[in-house]
Amino acid sequence: MGAALLSELATEIVVPVCAVIGIAFSLLQWVLVSRVSVTPDRHGSGAANNNNNGYDEYLIEEEDAVSERAVITKCAEIQSAISEGATSFLFTEYQYVGIFMIIFAIVIFLFLGSVEGFSTKSQPCTYDKQRMCKPALATALFSTISFLLGAITSLLSGFLGMKIATYANARTTLQARKGVGRAFITAFRSGAVMGFLLAANGLLVLYIAINVFKLYYGDDWEGLFESITGYGLGGSSMALFGRVGGGIYTKAADVGADLVGKVERNIPEDDPRNPAVIADNVGDNVGDIAGMGSDLFGSYAESSCAALVVASISSFGINHDFTGMLYPLLISSMGILICLITTLFATDFFEIKAVKEIEPALKRQLIISTVLMTVGIAAVTWTGLPSSFTIYNFGTQKVVKNWQLFLCVAVGLWAGLIIGFVTEYYTSNAYSPVQDVADSCRTGAATNVIFGLALGYKSVIIPIFAIAVSIFVSFTFAAMYGIAVAALGMLSTIATGLAIDAYGPISDNAGGIAEMAGMSPRVRERTDALDAAGNTTAAIGKGFAIGSAALVSLALFGAFVSRASISTVDVLTPKVIIGLLVGAMLPYWFSAMTMKSVGSAALKMVEEVRRQFNTIPGIMDGRSKPDYATCVKISTDASIKEMLPPGALVMLTPLIVGSLFGVETLSGVLAGSLVSGVQIAISASNTGGAWDNAKKYIEAGASDHARSLGPKGSDPHKAAVIGDTIGDPLKDTSGPSLNILIKLMAVESLVFAPFFAAHGGFLFKIFG
Amino acid sequence: MGAALLSELATEIVVPVCAVIGIAFSLLQWVLVSRVSVTPDRHGSGAANNNNNGYDEYLIEEEDAVSERAVITKCAEIQSAISEGATSFLFTEYQYVGIFMIIFAIVIFLFLGSVEGFSTKSQPCTYDKQRMCKPALATALFSTISFLLGAITSLLSGFLGMKIATYANARTTLQARKGVGRAFITAFRSGAVMGFLLAANGLLVLYIAINVFKLYYGDDWEGLFESITGYGLGGSSMALFGRVGGGIYTKAADVGADLVGKVERNIPEDDPRNPAVIADNVGDNVGDIAGMGSDLFGSYAESSCAALVVASISSFGINHDFTGMLYPLLISSMGILICLITTLFATDFFEIKAVKEIEPALKRQLIISTVLMTVGIAAVTWTGLPSSFTIYNFGTQKVVKNWQLFLCVAVGLWAGLIIGFVTEYYTSNAYSPVQDVADSCRTGAATNVIFGLALGYKSVIIPIFAIAVSIFVSFTFAAMYGIAVAALGMLSTIATGLAIDAYGPISDNAGGIAEMAGMSPRVRERTDALDAAGNTTAAIGKGFAIGSAALVSLALFGAFVSRASISTVDVLTPKVIIGLLVGAMLPYWFSAMTMKSVGSAALKMVEEVRRQFNTIPGIMDGRSKPDYATCVKISTDASIKEMLPPGALVMLTPLIVGSLFGVETLSGVLAGSLVSGVQIAISASNTGGAWDNAKKYIEAGASDHARSLGPKGSDPHKAAVIGDTIGDPLKDTSGPSLNILIKLMAVESLVFAPFFAAHGGFLFKIFG
Repeated sequence: MGAALLSELATEIVVPVCAVIGIAFSLLQWVLVSRVSVTPDRHGSGAANNNNNGYDEYLIEEEDAVSERAVITKCAEIQSAISEGATSFLFTEYQYVGIFMIIFAIVIFLFLGSVEGFSTKSQPCTYDKQRMCKPALATALFSTISFLLGAITSLLSGFLGMKIATYANARTTLQARKGVGRAFITAFRSGAVMGFLLAANGLLVLYIAINVFKLYYGDDWEGLFESITGYGLGGSSMALFGRVGGGIYTKAADVGADLVGKVERNIPEDDPRNPAVIADNVGDNVGDIAGMGSDLFGSYAESSCAALVVASISSFGINHDFTGMLYPLLISSMGILICLITTLFATDFFEIKAVKEIEPALKRQLIISTVLMTVGIAAVTWTGLPSSFTIYNFGTQKVVKNWQLFLCVAVGLWAGLIIGFVTEYYTSNAYSPVQDVADSCRTGAATNVIFGLALGYKSVIIPIFAIAVSIFVSFTFAAMYGIAVAALGMLSTIATGLAIDAYGPISDNAGGIAEMAGMSPRVRERTDALDAAGNTTAAIGKGFAIGSAALVSLALFGAFVSRASISTVDVLTPKVIIGLLVGAMLPYWFSAMTMKSVGSAALKMVEEVRRQFNTIPGIMDGRSKPDYATCVKISTDASIKEMLPPGALVMLTPLIVGSLFGVETLSGVLAGSLVSGVQIAISASNTGGAWDNAKKYIEAGASDHARSLGPKGSDPHKAAVIGDTIGDPLKDTSGPSLNILIKLMAVESLVFAPFFAAHGGFLFKIFG
Repeated sequence: MGAALLSELATEIVVPVCAVIGIAFSLLQWVLVSRVSVTPDRHGSGAANNNNNGYDEYLIEEEDAVSERAVITKCAEIQSAISEGATSFLFTEYQYVGIFMIIFAIVIFLFLGSVEGFSTKSQPCTYDKQRMCKPALATALFSTISFLLGAITSLLSGFLGMKIATYANARTTLQARKGVGRAFITAFRSGAVMGFLLAANGLLVLYIAINVFKLYYGDDWEGLFESITGYGLGGSSMALFGRVGGGIYTKAADVGADLVGKVERNIPEDDPRNPAVIADNVGDNVGDIAGMGSDLFGSYAESSCAALVVASISSFGINHDFTGMLYPLLISSMGILICLITTLFATDFFEIKAVKEIEPALKRQLIISTVLMTVGIAAVTWTGLPSSFTIYNFGTQKVVKNWQLFLCVAVGLWAGLIIGFVTEYYTSNAYSPVQDVADSCRTGAATNVIFGLALGYKSVIIPIFAIAVSIFVSFTFAAMYGIAVAALGMLSTIATGLAIDAYGPISDNAGGIAEMAGMSPRVRERTDALDAAGNTTAAIGKGFAIGSAALVSLALFGAFVSRASISTVDVLTPKVIIGLLVGAMLPYWFSAMTMKSVGSAALKMVEEVRRQFNTIPGIMDGRSKPDYATCVKISTDASIKEMLPPGALVMLTPLIVGSLFGVETLSGVLAGSLVSGVQIAISASNTGGAWDNAKKYIEAGASDHARSLGPKGSDPHKAAVIGDTIGDPLKDTSGPSLNILIKLMAVESLVFAPFFAAHGGFLFKIFG
């Protein structure tokens, strides 16, 4: 088998050091962003005058001194309103999920503790019956702890991301006055703060947990890594509420604001006269930033856990090869370093000078990180792994070479890039698919919707083939472990991916603040350009999220099947096929809930906005201010209330199916929801993205074709706005939430596998 | 094992006699419909006067003598225009599918003949190696013949259905002048002609084929029933083109007519000034009648074949128990008798006197037929089967009791009824789901679409549970044979189902003819009432079609796996999981194609209709006639051209996957497309149906709530029209075509299973 070049001690040093580097880099970016002040002291009447507001050149082309002071004050005001709204929502949300967390922690402890009747005696190990392992009660306790750790890390990631985003939005607006390049760097750096903080935090907490748990578990790595899977469950269950709650919040506000503002009152987006405008901007931060952050953190935590749990029963675990064991964490550590270099390409090595350079710069980030990471993976693989080792494969040990594992990780990484680019092709208005959708607006909203749905369906084809090839390669080479590390490969550049992703909503907010602060339309043009590029990268980010979710769930599913002691999942048995059928239905049930939630919440918002327009005199001519707070409250209340049923569906299904119908049916449910959910998630995201950009294509009028459909307010444009509104819940609520549905059900099944294996299938036991 | 009460001779008599009774009853209904004359001879100037036009009372309340002559002439004219358009489309379609049929027949012969290298020597049987069976070449030849038989029977069913429908539409219009009850009976009888003809024909041809093939095969029942599966393939491949081609035709015309007529020109539906109006009415006949007919015929043929092929390797086949062997045909024979009695309840035992009695009368048909059929199944089971027998179950023989098989058939039958009623609940505007969708039109088209999509997703839940329970019960009791007979149970009342189903488009056409002929609005009101009930029953029919398709495909899939000599389809193998993932993607690919086809064809239609409105002077005030023929030609050409790519996708996928990747991957593809396709098909049909009826709800204004949304032309109504238009391709093209996708891929895999088992998996053999 041979040994790895990297010693155990070196591994113990490398991983935390890389994590700390990531955190330090993140703080550095934060310091750079914070140099832009939003306190109007330069031209302030009585305030200190020594801070030059971060500018080193004079703002010749924009506001004069007097209005500048007003503008900065206004920006600061709006920023703090958004930040307060977001903070208040997240705190309300956290109260509810806090209660859930405690209840669910108790459930985990009781279910897993009951496996051996809460016995405190050591037991024969699950896989190696010759050896003695720690009691199930210990696994119950440590699983509960790691669940709480994962949950808290996820909440923290989302919360910090939101804080940074609301800290950066007004700064981006102010920088936009100085040029598009400066605004870009501010927004991008802020995204990087979040990306690196999340990636490094996730890694560090996981690393510490493993080392602390090891103090108790000692050589019982089977039990150690089984209890670590709770970390993935914690991360993902918080992500569920973050995605669903945030998704409903943001789209209820967005759809509500648009339906009255744009469609009925004919006022522009982000107009300060619209009472729902603050809620809309808050939504971008709680949905697209906090939700997305916790989603990707969940994927990252889960794929690490899936890889670790399989590794613990492979030669790494059996031989106690700690470096080989921590291979997944080494990949992530390398990822942080690679992303750090990649970031410098965007912020330091090149400078954005014109609007048209933004999108290529962002795409270059993806390509650079992927190319560099391929080398990075090779380095980690050849130093961190022995040349040959064995991997657990449903009861047998499969011999794997290190180059095969390199291919597994690399195929995941590159499949991610392919999915990203296909997503871009189908959602960017630079290509024919979106232009065709825009063109179909000529005959009205109906054809727009028909073409948009068809586009979404079509956009599924290549990503599915890319995922299928990744699965086939990694499964063939290294069974479930291969799939888990393929997922990690796709997520290894998560810091860059998140930076690009968070950049979008920050730019969107910046535009909103420019509009609300009444700044020059030229500022708005620049932030709009940033935002348009962000729309496409957001779609790419969603592509990554769903692609990695598919791989992660399959890896978790495989680990679950291994742990549940079944050797095959045969479609042609009644228990499995009904699970498969019902599992494939769950994404529809879930989407029905989330879409209807957005619809109902938006209707409430519409009523409130209409009420304010009708009852507050002078609101339309700007003489009196609308009541933003009520709209924020409506979104908050609606999303908290509406996130509970879909949350319950996802959290309870594995428990109910596993307990009542047993592991075979649960396997079917997991496989069914995986293969069906992936398709709906991709098509929903891309359909929504395409509609959004078809509308932007008509609005921008950058070509003869686009101008023939416009201008704003024309019939085709109105049809495009309808499509955009329909797409909102598809692309920002129901679509991305499905990632979590498939991952969460799989990781929950894995965590509860010992219980199901011992006590599951209650109903069939009675009637069978 | 014991013997059945029914002797072989009795079976040989009972089946054809029931089929002949069905055909005779069908002809009787036709004679009754034909009594209504569409020749204006009663008040004709010089024509014979002895025919009283089928009336036995005077038309006091409608047109006077002079206008009646004009009206009847006009009706006859329109009817013949519709009939000509439909005939011409079907003949064009048949030319293309004729070529396809010949090519595919050759492919079948060559592929299956190559299994044993075209040897003419007898070979050991596949399952019982001790015995000698006919050579693979014989199976190739007879499979080709039964394929052609199935294809021709399917074409004939579709064509006759269309002929009868276009024969009946004007007659229904004329009867509507005399009362709603008379119109109902005319439309319903015409539907019954089609229903009985199709059920009886399908049964008779299958029966004759079995008996003729038996002359050659003798005691080699394994080979005999293997070659009979070609009948299912033939039926289903024609159904594919019928559904897809007809579906594109009808919706291109419908959407095109609506977009210009209703939305732009503000003229009513079916207005004779609309150039696309004839094409629209032709579409109802070629899509909803011919397409639906061949779809259900395909399901019927396939479930019979799946049951027969499994039975041939069970104790029925091994012991040469002919009565037990023909149990599936006995069920269908009983079905014809039961449906005959059921029909009398609609046409003779009760009389429809008011509009509100129509829908209950149709629903009563379903309930009566299901209740009676339960008794019928019991009778067939206890007389036709021994009390105990064995069923082939993936390599072993499973002992099954006759009461268990009764439960299998009955669970399918009742699951169909449940699916039907759930479908009704979600698509009829008498219940809250559709009313909620209508209410969401208050805030515009976007919320209407969001709520409609959510409704469709939600409507999947109960049908999937119903299908899952049927599968679980029938699979547990009698393996794949159980599932096949459960499908047959669901389809046993096909004659009644089709009668109800065909009734809808006939009424729709009748309304169109009334409008075009310029008849009194009171006639139109009556036909509209017939049509509204027809909309709901059409949705119920689609529910049956998809439910039975799910069961049929699973049964075929099981038969394929048995024939392909693999004993398990393990999700956790790379070959199967990638098949599962790609299979689940296929319905999306297929839907993308069909929806885009409808969109593109509709755009062409819109252009033509606009061109005619703009260039033909006097078209809007009725002074000059639009050029209907060009619109008919556009729909014909577009549908023929556009049906080829989706057709190729479905027909080629099993061949390519089986040949290149082998039977394991193909199994995955079949399972994936089944579990994913069912969901999309149900949700697409119900979303479309709900939008259609939400619009009708607003238009009818039958409650305070409905009136608050109307009248026609109000903003909510316009939003509802947009939803209706989007729903058209969902409910009539892409949704129902998916039934055929999942069935056809399964039956094709079964027919080619001997080839795949011998030569499949080419790629993996090279690289593996």
